[in-house]
Amino acid sequence: MENFDFYSPTCFVFGKETENRAGELIKRFGGSKVLIHYGGGSVVRSGLLDRVKSSLSAEGISFVELGGVKPNPRSGLVYEGIDLCRKEGVDFLLAVGGGSTIDSSKAIAAGVVYDGDFWDFYQGKRIEKALPVGTVLTIAAAGSEGSGDSVITKEEGMFKRGASGDAIRPKFSILNPELTQTLPPYQTACGITDIMAHLYERYLTNSKDVEVTDRLIEALLLTMINEGPKVIADPDNYQARANIMWAGTMAHTNACGVGRSQDWLSHMIEHELSAQYDCAHGAGLAVTMPAVFSYELSHNVMRFAQAAVRIWGCQMDFENPERTARAGIEALRNYLCSIGMPKNFAELGAKEEDIPKMVQSLLYGDGGSGKISGFITLGEEDCTKIYQAMV
Amino acid sequence: MENFDFYSPTCFVFGKETENRAGELIKRFGGSKVLIHYGGGSVVRSGLLDRVKSSLSAEGISFVELGGVKPNPRSGLVYEGIDLCRKEGVDFLLAVGGGSTIDSSKAIAAGVVYDGDFWDFYQGKRIEKALPVGTVLTIAAAGSEGSGDSVITKEEGMFKRGASGDAIRPKFSILNPELTQTLPPYQTACGITDIMAHLYERYLTNSKDVEVTDRLIEALLLTMINEGPKVIADPDNYQARANIMWAGTMAHTNACGVGRSQDWLSHMIEHELSAQYDCAHGAGLAVTMPAVFSYELSHNVMRFAQAAVRIWGCQMDFENPERTARAGIEALRNYLCSIGMPKNFAELGAKEEDIPKMVQSLLYGDGGSGKISGFITLGEEDCTKIYQAMV
Repeated sequence: MENFDFYSPTCFVFGKETENRAGELIKRFGGSKVLIHYGGGSVVRSGLLDRVKSSLSAEGISFVELGGVKPNPRSGLVYEGIDLCRKEGVDFLLAVGGGSTIDSSKAIAAGVVYDGDFWDFYQGKRIEKALPVGTVLTIAAAGSEGSGDSVITKEEGMFKRGASGDAIRPKFSILNPELTQTLPPYQTACGITDIMAHLYERYLTNSKDVEVTDRLIEALLLTMINEGPKVIADPDNYQARANIMWAGTMAHTNACGVGRSQDWLSHMIEHELSAQYDCAHGAGLAVTMPAVFSYELSHNVMRFAQAAVRIWGCQMDFENPERTARAGIEALRNYLCSIGMPKNFAELGAKEEDIPKMVQSLLYGDGGSGKISGFITLGEEDCTKIYQAMV
Repeated sequence: MENFDFYSPTCFVFGKETENRAGELIKRFGGSKVLIHYGGGSVVRSGLLDRVKSSLSAEGISFVELGGVKPNPRSGLVYEGIDLCRKEGVDFLLAVGGGSTIDSSKAIAAGVVYDGDFWDFYQGKRIEKALPVGTVLTIAAAGSEGSGDSVITKEEGMFKRGASGDAIRPKFSILNPELTQTLPPYQTACGITDIMAHLYERYLTNSKDVEVTDRLIEALLLTMINEGPKVIADPDNYQARANIMWAGTMAHTNACGVGRSQDWLSHMIEHELSAQYDCAHGAGLAVTMPAVFSYELSHNVMRFAQAAVRIWGCQMDFENPERTARAGIEALRNYLCSIGMPKNFAELGAKEEDIPKMVQSLLYGDGGSGKISGFITLGEEDCTKIYQAMV
């Protein structure tokens, strides 16, 4: 195990009707003038936005609103949010939505108190200061509700980049599994896939002696495997939704990823797909992961065999561990398929002829070095082969 | 799963030589005049105290010292610490030691800023305000480095009682597994037992649909089972120490215990043993747990069978689940025995003739109602039978 710092100061408020505590929590964490930031109509139509506003009003907290966040959130709306916050004297950001809304809120929160262009943070500058952020989560997926990370796409060039800093960790996150019950099955499955990817990216490590974090990751993956099919079969299954929601948050606070090297190649390779086709991140990951893992397999057969046995319940083939390792990847592919995720370019709407363009953008876009590294290191030929395996 | 709030704002700094960051961390969390609180000679002899002091001096932080914390820490030293802090204008508490030292520091931190008697907090008053506390942990056991709890024993009557509050959650905890390498095997084993008890107390729940927390608890218990024998065989095994240390902290931040009812009967029953005989808490738990669990078994055979299969790798006897359930408890007893823990009153130094006195103190001492509740509810006859099963 390697040395690490772990800091997750977010207050998680979990359970039924907890969105009604938004006002109380903003007050506790020092907010008095709030920007409520959200995406499209579902937050409005479901009455959630009204309930949140009532909760703020009940505490005497004033607010302004900014809707319109899109999946793969854009820099344009962030600039708009920054201007609005400055004009209105906002001192607290409340994100009501999923990972995209939370990431957009974090970007605004950092930008408001920064003299330069907020995009600096997405080109490597660490975020040291930001307005406080709170969240009301509506989909279990990105884990942004418990992380110090944000991913934004810049319209010019469609560059999708991340920024980090403890300053943008949410002060509180309200997690009400009921709010996820109205999600269409496809989006629910995308969320499940994203959570599982966050776990696999941490599982694939070159660090030795990481039993405790291995076991924690396995625990959360076992939960997803057990609970996922329940919510696909019955979207109103509150208890399965609850198990998935807490697993999704725990998957990304990094409590299960500390002290070990991590992979993240699947995320890097997928980012080109969602940037190119604006497909759902989870759907892209469902196609990407099996291809990447199969390519990585020979680097450490025993790690993939361990995943197969401990996570997927495969029998260990002691004479041929590689057979077990492959069975684990196949089990993942079958699972994702069973919850309605695409398994290839065709189902995703991606095109083989775009592969060279994606490889170029992945490896050289926005100052890239021609290599990407995680569990293994990939160059042009490797990335091309991986994308081709998805066709 | 039940509604819950989860808040664990402690910054955990983990790994080799991290005690040298004490000064930097105190500065970050606003301390300028520190009380360094510790126990006996080992912290001094090992040079740890000197390294911590150097780290503070390097940051220009002044400090006073108070040693002498004993296992099952006493109220007398807490009063002394409160007086010293007030006299010296201390604004930050640094605990260098194990759970007892941390708990004593938390009590002092709460007492300094309170006008009344600090013991009020140990009679049910919630701690709302305290000086900030940091810790340098020297034994993986109590989990106090990541909790908002403190247990103190009042000399008059030897009442051992707990207090809680977010205000006493450590601002930071330095976890260097190297510092635990000098512990005698018996103390190491006591720590392992305590950690496993914290996990079992959470596992034994009457809540339904708690897959995610079940799996997380199992993950940490599997880690303890795998890593425990390694450190008993080789006290210098840094990696096994590291796995145990992070498991011990994760076991008690409550990330794995949220949204579910918990047990804690073993802790209540054990407290009488350590209060009566001043034995190590972990050793008392090793004798207590199998007796309590055997008594609880009929309340929910399938839960104990699940523990047996998932944690101890027992084969499920589908015709006779109770046989599997009992095998799991037996596996726990054998494991604790194998790491050098006592298995009965005789090995612990406890006496059968004291049972009536302990039952009285447990059920009626300090305003008790004659019943204690957790996974099940126990009265006089039940408690007597459980203590007798330990003889």
